Amino acid sequence: MKALEEKICKEGQVYPGNVLKVGSFLNHQIDVPFMCECGREFYKEFSGLGVNKILTIEASGIAIAVLTAQYFGVHTVFAKKSKTSNIADNVYSAPVKSYTHNVTNQVMIEKCYLNPGDKVLIIDDFLAHGEALTGLIKLVEDAGAEVIGAGIVIEKAFQEGGTALREKGYKIVSLARVQSMDAKTGAITFVD
Amino acid sequence: MKALEEKICKEGQVYPGNVLKVGSFLNHQIDVPFMCECGREFYKEFSGLGVNKILTIEASGIAIAVLTAQYFGVHTVFAKKSKTSNIADNVYSAPVKSYTHNVTNQVMIEKCYLNPGDKVLIIDDFLAHGEALTGLIKLVEDAGAEVIGAGIVIEKAFQEGGTALREKGYKIVSLARVQSMDAKTGAITFVD
Repeated sequence: MKALEEKICKEGQVYPGNVLKVGSFLNHQIDVPFMCECGREFYKEFSGLGVNKILTIEASGIAIAVLTAQYFGVHTVFAKKSKTSNIADNVYSAPVKSYTHNVTNQVMIEKCYLNPGDKVLIIDDFLAHGEALTGLIKLVEDAGAEVIGAGIVIEKAFQEGGTALREKGYKIVSLARVQSMDAKTGAITFVD
Repeated sequence: MKALEEKICKEGQVYPGNVLKVGSFLNHQIDVPFMCECGREFYKEFSGLGVNKILTIEASGIAIAVLTAQYFGVHTVFAKKSKTSNIADNVYSAPVKSYTHNVTNQVMIEKCYLNPGDKVLIIDDFLAHGEALTGLIKLVEDAGAEVIGAGIVIEKAFQEGGTALREKGYKIVSLARVQSMDAKTGAITFVD
């Protein structure tokens, strides 16, 4: 998605340790009209496949997930990173390491919100090592539901997550695939 | 909003300690088409007042905030509950006690995303004691920006937050105002 690549180059900031900061439009401030365009792209890619539910993970995935869900006219479920007094004991769970927060969370979703027969599209803001996506896929498959695919806003294609999951046969659509980032010059290149 | 009151009665579950669980449509699974209707209601209430930014707090506020923001055509910013390696030191912050999680978080927003002259609509899923809303108002006012008002999906009107903040002069619109909840019978009544 050319407009997204341009936006990343214009607004993104590269920091050491392969950190790409896009807080101006994706995961702190959200450019809602632009994210609606991203949601429309996901709809183009995954419509006609019977998607009846969108799954994401708190917190940064929620915005793009619900803005995508409105084109499909379906519900969104987000996996939670911690247990609250409001959540039932009856959950599907999976370990997900966060490199940003440097912790491993046992992410969870109440069982009643994922069911056999569900055709699930997973949506998330970033794909890098694939930890979150692998965990979300496990939740869906533990429920006996089907993963239709995954829509990712920004993939760090130089890290292994996307490649490994595509090799397993999952349909993964990333709207921008970063090939390289240089913290010294700020230069960002994309996979064709 | 009559449809919301009906949905709360149909899908909500009341637990001891004034817990109202609405995970089927608001804060675990999100009924996106229905939440779009809620966003449209907020737009009716606050359009024409110059709103140029919507502010919420992670995680449950994000969905309704961005679905509302699309009607205004504006950006959304969400306050974060913990510091990540991606967030700058230059933040506005406020203490917010969460009764659900039983912790006090220092919530924060990077200064560049709230500016003097901004006319901010605050959106959140729940209003009870008013802790989150009070914290968000502090962030806006610390930035020299203006609080246009707050749109809340469900207010527990039997708790003091809404009343106290309205008495201070803030325009607060709650789509459903719960007057009483009974954990034994499951009965829920609403303010007229």
